Amino acid sequence: MKKYGFGVDIGGTTCKIGLFETAGHLVEKWEIPTDTQENGKNILPDIADFLYKKMEERRVPGEELEGIGVGLPGPVRMDGIVPVCVNLGWKDLNVSKELEAMMKGIPVKAGNDANVAALGEMWQGGGRGHKNVVMVTLGTGVGGGIIVDGKIVSGSNGAGGEIGHITVNPHEEISCNCGRKGCLEQYASATGITRLARERLAREHKKSLLDETGELSAKVVFDAYKEGDGTAAEIVEKFACILGNALSNIACVADPEVFVIGGGVSKAGEPLLDAVHKYYCRSAFSSCADTRFALASLGNDAGMYGCVKLILD
Amino acid sequence: MKKYGFGVDIGGTTCKIGLFETAGHLVEKWEIPTDTQENGKNILPDIADFLYKKMEERRVPGEELEGIGVGLPGPVRMDGIVPVCVNLGWKDLNVSKELEAMMKGIPVKAGNDANVAALGEMWQGGGRGHKNVVMVTLGTGVGGGIIVDGKIVSGSNGAGGEIGHITVNPHEEISCNCGRKGCLEQYASATGITRLARERLAREHKKSLLDETGELSAKVVFDAYKEGDGTAAEIVEKFACILGNALSNIACVADPEVFVIGGGVSKAGEPLLDAVHKYYCRSAFSSCADTRFALASLGNDAGMYGCVKLILD
Repeated sequence: MKKYGFGVDIGGTTCKIGLFETAGHLVEKWEIPTDTQENGKNILPDIADFLYKKMEERRVPGEELEGIGVGLPGPVRMDGIVPVCVNLGWKDLNVSKELEAMMKGIPVKAGNDANVAALGEMWQGGGRGHKNVVMVTLGTGVGGGIIVDGKIVSGSNGAGGEIGHITVNPHEEISCNCGRKGCLEQYASATGITRLARERLAREHKKSLLDETGELSAKVVFDAYKEGDGTAAEIVEKFACILGNALSNIACVADPEVFVIGGGVSKAGEPLLDAVHKYYCRSAFSSCADTRFALASLGNDAGMYGCVKLILD
Repeated sequence: MKKYGFGVDIGGTTCKIGLFETAGHLVEKWEIPTDTQENGKNILPDIADFLYKKMEERRVPGEELEGIGVGLPGPVRMDGIVPVCVNLGWKDLNVSKELEAMMKGIPVKAGNDANVAALGEMWQGGGRGHKNVVMVTLGTGVGGGIIVDGKIVSGSNGAGGEIGHITVNPHEEISCNCGRKGCLEQYASATGITRLARERLAREHKKSLLDETGELSAKVVFDAYKEGDGTAAEIVEKFACILGNALSNIACVADPEVFVIGGGVSKAGEPLLDAVHKYYCRSAFSSCADTRFALASLGNDAGMYGCVKLILD
């Protein structure tokens, strides 16, 4: 095995780039802007230029590079094609082939950003030591990644691990961003929790710490929950019930060793984990009742880690 | 690759044993009784005796055998251990190790029966030509098998593909066999459909072909449905809605190329497939909207086929 690998996590605003030792140590990381003009045609050349520059600066010759892993905010099919990536302006692009050509044949592999984050957490984060992991990313939306036997389940349409769009409430009347109604994301994301809070406060009023805050947010709700606020507890219980039940259903499909919970909302920490775990246990199929729950530990670097792990397999 | 393989599908009453050419052709098949006395201690020796007899009769020396695949009605963990198999009386048994010892080192692999049936349908049945398959077996219960990149997702507790125990109705009051309430199996199995029919007939009466039948069953319901009976159509629509929605959620996890529907209930054929597909399309995440639906085609032999495929990988 060679000594180094690059992890490149492309976002709609910036690309996070990390130089890793293949044993798992992050040597240094940088950010460069993502140029989405003209259907993102400069994104890969910009990355290639930057990588060459860093290889020179750091005296890392191509021969010492195991490869370059790329994460991107869209589906990556099993054949490596990105059918469409709205945030970057890409359509029908074979990312690994294109970047490989620019990098004089250094191997490149690409994956969906949520999926590579899951792989990163499995490798060096909250799922370390396991090979069967379901990661749940609670951010503005709800993302996910399914790792089976150490490998990403990307799915035949790149929709593997799109657990934010599991229907959890067929009676929902408000539409999800995906156009359907009742998706997990509508209740378990930061925006979803804020909405649950708004609905709860509108329904019935009792004195609550939430009255005193300027703007409602998932963070405000969890902060009040930790202070013992009753209204916040109701909101958190509802969130935890919906998410815990959804995870118990996912366990009947993928049966992971561990669920790793990440994303901005997961900064609420152990109290969040405990609440979700409680409802998971109530509804889990008996064989899966002992599945572990862990917090993600790599934060925004998880994607870069997973990108590197991609090229090591 | 060697020329032959044995597929051994162990059931609670009989073991189905098939001699296959490794290219996929079933040469001959037999059944022997399953002796479940004394915690099933005779099952594997009986199978070994039978296999030796057939190897001699058919002049198949051990050197020409790629191996022996075994399916069994219980969970098989990723480490090969069967923690418990109620129907056979087994507990904490390493099936492949035990049988290998009896078979002078001919390689043995074991898997859960629903999972190997899914693998069999992927190899030579309704999922042929695909490597990412979700099989749904609609029998007395609802079983399933998830195949990702040609391999069974057995899960960390052997509960991979236990899709019959996805909770589809949190408001259910009657218990499932698993002790929980509202499992898919309670609505989409043969017994589940019969129950939906009974409930429908008890609720409101209009003239129906179902009045004329002696005993209600899933078959009777689908037969009346094909005759254009309105009451039967309501029952089938309810079944199809529940199953179609559940499969759309599974697609957000595993995103298969094809759903293969098997089991006794699937003998209703294309009309069943069409009804489930209709509801699947209504609720599917957009990326997965074009996922194919196919009927299983190997019937009760699927398990034997999958057992052989197990040893070829």
